Amino acid sequence: MRERFKYDIHATDGAARTGTIQMMRGDIRTPAFMPVGTAGTVKAMMPESVRSTGADILLGNTYHLMLRPTAERVHKLGGLHKFMNWDRPILTDSGGFQVMSLTQLRKMSEEGVTFQSHLDGSKILLTPERSMEIQRLLGSDIMMCFDECTPYPATEDQARQSMELSMRWAQRSRDGFDSGTDHAARSALFGIVQGSVYEDLRFRSIDALQEIGFDGYAVGGLAVGEGQEMMFRVLDFTMPRMPKETPRYLMGVGKPDDIVGAVERGIDMFDCVMPTRSGRTGQGFTWRGAINMKNARHKDDMRPIQEGCACPACTQYSRAYVHHLIRAGEILGAMLLTWHNLQFYQDLMAGLRQAISDGRLTEHANNFRETYALGDIDPL
Amino acid sequence: MRERFKYDIHATDGAARTGTIQMMRGDIRTPAFMPVGTAGTVKAMMPESVRSTGADILLGNTYHLMLRPTAERVHKLGGLHKFMNWDRPILTDSGGFQVMSLTQLRKMSEEGVTFQSHLDGSKILLTPERSMEIQRLLGSDIMMCFDECTPYPATEDQARQSMELSMRWAQRSRDGFDSGTDHAARSALFGIVQGSVYEDLRFRSIDALQEIGFDGYAVGGLAVGEGQEMMFRVLDFTMPRMPKETPRYLMGVGKPDDIVGAVERGIDMFDCVMPTRSGRTGQGFTWRGAINMKNARHKDDMRPIQEGCACPACTQYSRAYVHHLIRAGEILGAMLLTWHNLQFYQDLMAGLRQAISDGRLTEHANNFRETYALGDIDPL
Ligand SMILES: [Zn+2]
Ligand SMILES: [Zn+2]
Repeated sequence: MRERFKYDIHATDGAARTGTIQMMRGDIRTPAFMPVGTAGTVKAMMPESVRSTGADILLGNTYHLMLRPTAERVHKLGGLHKFMNWDRPILTDSGGFQVMSLTQLRKMSEEGVTFQSHLDGSKILLTPERSMEIQRLLGSDIMMCFDECTPYPATEDQARQSMELSMRWAQRSRDGFDSGTDHAARSALFGIVQGSVYEDLRFRSIDALQEIGFDGYAVGGLAVGEGQEMMFRVLDFTMPRMPKETPRYLMGVGKPDDIVGAVERGIDMFDCVMPTRSGRTGQGFTWRGAINMKNARHKDDMRPIQEGCACPACTQYSRAYVHHLIRAGEILGAMLLTWHNLQFYQDLMAGLRQAISDGRLTEHANNFRETYALGDIDPL
Repeated sequence: MRERFKYDIHATDGAARTGTIQMMRGDIRTPAFMPVGTAGTVKAMMPESVRSTGADILLGNTYHLMLRPTAERVHKLGGLHKFMNWDRPILTDSGGFQVMSLTQLRKMSEEGVTFQSHLDGSKILLTPERSMEIQRLLGSDIMMCFDECTPYPATEDQARQSMELSMRWAQRSRDGFDSGTDHAARSALFGIVQGSVYEDLRFRSIDALQEIGFDGYAVGGLAVGEGQEMMFRVLDFTMPRMPKETPRYLMGVGKPDDIVGAVERGIDMFDCVMPTRSGRTGQGFTWRGAINMKNARHKDDMRPIQEGCACPACTQYSRAYVHHLIRAGEILGAMLLTWHNLQFYQDLMAGLRQAISDGRLTEHANNFRETYALGDIDPL
């Protein structure tokens, strides 16, 4: 019998940890990177290909799915897992972040957020209770509290009011989650720490969330324009105060070096559109930094994007071919480069897990940063 | 030791035949459908996925490849097979058809066609000799003569002049092909019958080509706006006069019912962008006709696109999901629907081959047409 939610930490190294989250639909090895499947698909990928890169869990976006095909329809069709043919864990966000970043004419109140659908202009009210209901209808394994992602920059007063609203919504999210008894018995709920760049607010947010009690705790309100240095500074004071026995998730992060630095500071879970979005715009990740596959230097290059990478783009095709596809606007270019980037991110995570297990994370992370700063291999 | 080119006809049924073309890079079961890989990729498909549908051979477009990445570059990178990761036979067209349909400011002369590249505006001269050189640099297995695809409609006089030019170019193509001795020993050259809708011209074209001698004979200048009835009428008088021991290829055809009718009239090979292009625009093929996956009637439909189809779109996903992807503009929608359509076309060909072997082609073809005219299965 599998556990609903159980986090075993196998090893630590400094503030970093590696372990396994056991859930009904499968294990999640941490530190974990979750590919983003916004609208019920990891863009340009078959789900079995996503799995082949080593992904244990996907992220689905509540905002996109509630508008199309709608949560009720996904539920009627057997849930998101069946709909998109992914039988392992899925984490869903609350929809709040996308409502704030993608919609017009929105109005915040104590009750929730009213906004206009970007698809048909209809007026929609999203509340903590409705967000829980939607995530449950989707069949989410890890549901996120409905909160306000405090914009950056924010004054301390703005950040405090925003954080306190999020904490009241966290309690309503908890109640909403618990009211779905059948589904609550098979899934988990994470709280989200807010408080912008203010230490005192972050601490108060952590305390408020712990008071309510969650299966895991996310750090929200980062990667919103504050820059890597500030983000790390916030993590430096926030992480030591975070609960130790439960997973810690840094939302929407990030670039490979963001991830490495955050793992060193104790983060266990990540999600980001970067590998998939970059794959559609011609950017490929290598151990020597991100490279632009549109660049003419690749047009005669028979070498793979990344020597030693096990993805099909690297084992079966040359840089010259991927360059050709991207330049010609071919869908296969997006398919191959997305696949490679997801493989790169999963290889990055596997390397971090191993280094933590071996107690050599600092050396591993320094080596990574040094190589990553070198820039692409010399042209042929 | 594999043959350079050997066509064995296993069975005939009326004018129809089924057999195997043996080539250095693999066997081609006929009647065969060749998916189109315009720019070095069958759009939205991995080549192993194309193969999994049952495709024995692909078509590559000389015009697109000569402009980007250029034939010389493909050659330097090890040839088209290695470039695009397809180790089975590839047939290349001569580039002539695309020059006439895709370029501006072109000028025909006895020597060849001068045109402007749609990519950078540069002036390019394409001749029979250069077309043979390009196809050889690409590493083509079946090369096509450089000809003029006579536009429709054409007066008898226009059609005669155009056909006679194509026959002179056929001789120059033959000479150009033969001059590449190494490559000629491993590949094949097909002639192309022209003559528009005029019986006498078609006969004279066949005679002229046979005089030169080719490994196979294509019927060109059809599927250019004349309609199915006229196309079949031309095949009705052309096919009985075509060489019997060599493959017969109907270029650019076509819709499923076009293919069935042409097979009944003795055609062995087909190519068409229809399954791939349709897959990117939301049209799916079923035994009950082509259906528009964008249509709202599919949004709650848990059934597969085509019951019994072995493709991943049908075995792993619902119509509702494919509908959602297409409506959301997701790349996976194009991937799944293209895959399904290619599987449908290959299943169509496999069914025709079996029916010819069994001596029941007429019944099979009539059944196909009857079902195909019924329209989509009833909505749920
Ligand atoms: Zn790779
Ligand atoms: Zn199918």
